[in-house]
Amino acid sequence: MNEKTAPVNNLEAIVSLCKRRGFIFPSSEIYGGINGFWDYGPMGSELKRNVRDAWWRFTVHGREDVVGLDATIIMHPRIWEASGHLGGFADPMVDCKDCKKRYRADQLCEEQGQKLIPDGKNWKLPEGVACTACGSKNLTEPRAFNLMFKTYVGPVEDDSSVSYLRPETAQAIFAQFLNIAPTSRKSVPFGVAQSGKSFRNEINPRNFTFRSREFEQMELEFFIRPDEAVEIICGKVATLADNPDLAGPPQENWGWEVWHKYWVEQRLSWYRSIGLPGDSLVEYWQTEKELAHYARACVDIEYAFPFGVQELEGIAARSDFDLTQHQTFSGKSMLVMDDTLRLAVAKLDADAKDAFKAKTVAAWTARGKTAEDAAAFCDHLFEGRYIPHVVEPSAGTDRLALALICNAYEEQQLVDGKGNPDVRTVMHFHPAIAPIKVAVFPLVKNKPELYEKARAVFKGLSRHWNCFWDESGAIGRRYRRQDEVGTPFCVTVDFDTLENDTVTIRLRDSMEQTRLPVAELRSYIEKAIEA
Amino acid sequence: MNEKTAPVNNLEAIVSLCKRRGFIFPSSEIYGGINGFWDYGPMGSELKRNVRDAWWRFTVHGREDVVGLDATIIMHPRIWEASGHLGGFADPMVDCKDCKKRYRADQLCEEQGQKLIPDGKNWKLPEGVACTACGSKNLTEPRAFNLMFKTYVGPVEDDSSVSYLRPETAQAIFAQFLNIAPTSRKSVPFGVAQSGKSFRNEINPRNFTFRSREFEQMELEFFIRPDEAVEIICGKVATLADNPDLAGPPQENWGWEVWHKYWVEQRLSWYRSIGLPGDSLVEYWQTEKELAHYARACVDIEYAFPFGVQELEGIAARSDFDLTQHQTFSGKSMLVMDDTLRLAVAKLDADAKDAFKAKTVAAWTARGKTAEDAAAFCDHLFEGRYIPHVVEPSAGTDRLALALICNAYEEQQLVDGKGNPDVRTVMHFHPAIAPIKVAVFPLVKNKPELYEKARAVFKGLSRHWNCFWDESGAIGRRYRRQDEVGTPFCVTVDFDTLENDTVTIRLRDSMEQTRLPVAELRSYIEKAIEA
Repeated sequence: MNEKTAPVNNLEAIVSLCKRRGFIFPSSEIYGGINGFWDYGPMGSELKRNVRDAWWRFTVHGREDVVGLDATIIMHPRIWEASGHLGGFADPMVDCKDCKKRYRADQLCEEQGQKLIPDGKNWKLPEGVACTACGSKNLTEPRAFNLMFKTYVGPVEDDSSVSYLRPETAQAIFAQFLNIAPTSRKSVPFGVAQSGKSFRNEINPRNFTFRSREFEQMELEFFIRPDEAVEIICGKVATLADNPDLAGPPQENWGWEVWHKYWVEQRLSWYRSIGLPGDSLVEYWQTEKELAHYARACVDIEYAFPFGVQELEGIAARSDFDLTQHQTFSGKSMLVMDDTLRLAVAKLDADAKDAFKAKTVAAWTARGKTAEDAAAFCDHLFEGRYIPHVVEPSAGTDRLALALICNAYEEQQLVDGKGNPDVRTVMHFHPAIAPIKVAVFPLVKNKPELYEKARAVFKGLSRHWNCFWDESGAIGRRYRRQDEVGTPFCVTVDFDTLENDTVTIRLRDSMEQTRLPVAELRSYIEKAIEA
Repeated sequence: MNEKTAPVNNLEAIVSLCKRRGFIFPSSEIYGGINGFWDYGPMGSELKRNVRDAWWRFTVHGREDVVGLDATIIMHPRIWEASGHLGGFADPMVDCKDCKKRYRADQLCEEQGQKLIPDGKNWKLPEGVACTACGSKNLTEPRAFNLMFKTYVGPVEDDSSVSYLRPETAQAIFAQFLNIAPTSRKSVPFGVAQSGKSFRNEINPRNFTFRSREFEQMELEFFIRPDEAVEIICGKVATLADNPDLAGPPQENWGWEVWHKYWVEQRLSWYRSIGLPGDSLVEYWQTEKELAHYARACVDIEYAFPFGVQELEGIAARSDFDLTQHQTFSGKSMLVMDDTLRLAVAKLDADAKDAFKAKTVAAWTARGKTAEDAAAFCDHLFEGRYIPHVVEPSAGTDRLALALICNAYEEQQLVDGKGNPDVRTVMHFHPAIAPIKVAVFPLVKNKPELYEKARAVFKGLSRHWNCFWDESGAIGRRYRRQDEVGTPFCVTVDFDTLENDTVTIRLRDSMEQTRLPVAELRSYIEKAIEA
């Protein structure tokens, strides 16, 4: 990819191109739109499809230790009790008592250079915060607003039929763990991946598609052994201090810390593979204070959007919190039998077990857990059983699509043949995610032999990729149309093609043109897409 | 595919295999499930992905006259007023006054050999219908129950924030027509395709995944010229009486009737291409009485499920009903400019226009429309403008997945090596939609050279398809495991492989084994998948 001559940090120009070229439209626009909902047009739907597919190939097909799931958006409401979403998934909301406008309290404070004050389970407004619309300081106290969309399943609308649109895809993986583990013939460590729509009733959707009320996620729950099981099996648990080789295949002695860092590296390498350069991404390690109470570590992968550096993906080490919650709420045991552990335990004598248990109880109580829980955990371990721990790389598909669009966008300052300034708008998508891979042009329309040859080349390439046929206007104009939607290759069939079966292939980024035999087109393009 | 020896019409066996092998699980099963919701497991999610992708490739990438859309599930509620869903999308519901059980009235009648009686906009129960649960005939009168799931968008729950989960994907295509037509550089005839989740709050979900509350659709809206425009352009409108060649490329003189039949044929050919044989499908033409008032024709493509012959897809000629409704409700003109029509109109003199208008007014009034509407329509035509008509092939993804599973399922009666009866459960999926394309086995685990070679073969094939590695158990057992999930090819690496770089490839349906050079594996499998 060539150096960008004018990196554009202009969201307006990007939003305008998205609409003009069919990437993203406001939902229901002919009815005035609906705040927080966006549709993907002909180009956008292809881009998103490619992102989703690339993720699935990398996460599921590219590995032997991950399988897929495609669960429903509406699930049993108890799932959201177990996950904590029903109790705690809320944003602070304030109303202006004068003009009745409603705000997310933390955002309102931030916009005015202040910070919302936590107050137990509630919040307080700092002094001086005012309504942005009317300037009044006559605001309500902040109160919790649950972000889950509510609906009723079945013909009766009452408490017994209340259900929710999932606010994340992850919980279905935990809820189906007992079905997936035995039928997939996978044993820990293994993962379950899911991609699909989620819904959050944001008080103030904003930043184009970044904070929407309906959005798509790509989530993986990767189940690992508790460190104590690794210790019994391997004698010692590898940590980051051991400098493990994270680029090679996973090792049996890895503890949660290594697995977590491994997934951070895996995810970063995937972002690079679809054209987000490493230096465009920030790896933010949450501090002890920021972490959820059950989380041991969480890394945010962030991208510098025109509206600020914001999260694309969170990679959290969530311990056995989620499966344990579902065990408690469903009454179904989430313990798995680990044959490797069972065989390792069989080699321990009674003294070794006692020593192990004493050490574990000491470690757990030091972390604020009870000695009873630690002892029960050891007793299960000694039977070869445990509740798996989990590392969760959770990415937002729409956020990523927007980052790819922002990263690809360039207004290139050129000079035309007459020496006049000329602006080329070009989307530098990686070929793997570009909506159209190849455009095919006949040089002229009115030579049947040449036209038919171009059709044959087009048909041949269309069998493998999404291709575009364009026969109207000067070749230069056809190139520019493809540049705007990010088509990496344009193939022109001209009079020489009829002589020697070669075509001109023009590269989007460098605008270079080379000649290639028709027979070599497929492998040339295939290589570029895989690169 | 070989002849089925024991075609199984047993839904229970199919449901059991779906759960046992990770195709389909009840949603939220650890919490007792949620009626009408189903999750796709590791095998099912791959199957559904393949169906969705095959449809997209056939409908969008395989054609130059169709583009894609990926719109939101929650849209502006006015869309459902315009579409008629808010007023009319309802099922008749009755309650048992004694035991409080609730039924869909038409289904309750049918189960008791009766028929629900239409009564204007309402319904009446025939004599003698009783509650299935308690036998009481003390039932309420049937009343309408709207099938759309309702929710509230934004922090206020009132009439102004009521929204609905889409009951079909199609309406988003009409609502975005004005954004898509200009940005996609397509002109009529062209189509817009969308695949995604839809929701219907069925009173009685039933027949496994067939009638679910959350389901996936694959819908195409193919926009065509009104016949009158075709007549001006071509002089005469081709109808089915003209025996048009439906297998060749579409022709400019086709009227709606030919376009409709063309899409029926296209869809049938697609079903054949993914392994649903023509004789498993019924092409049901709705009678005049069954058609919606705006529809000119509708064909249901039906499949013989174990629970009865039921619809997979409807292909309707819907005239300009939908776009006209959205024009009325949004106040935005849905007229498109057709340059070919404009040029054809320019050749008509005043007399010809008058004659055309008189003929059109006569034809429209004979169909019950007003002379004013016909005249206004002609005036627009004479400017080269019209509201496009539409042919809508609308398919259910889950229904199709279930049909493919039912069609693939066989319990084959064999005789084992000792002459004892042996049942082989095999899923005869077409390779194009099989969840796993190839399984690779090392003959033995404990020969490093052989094992490494098998890994290399596996890695090579995994770059192109979803492959499965299995190293445990006798080869015969490994074959059977793959048969149950429908893997068409098993590749075994044995001692001969090390000598001459050939492998055994075993075919699922015939159980034949042949030897193939490793270098030819990719093209061999590629051909079978495309066949």
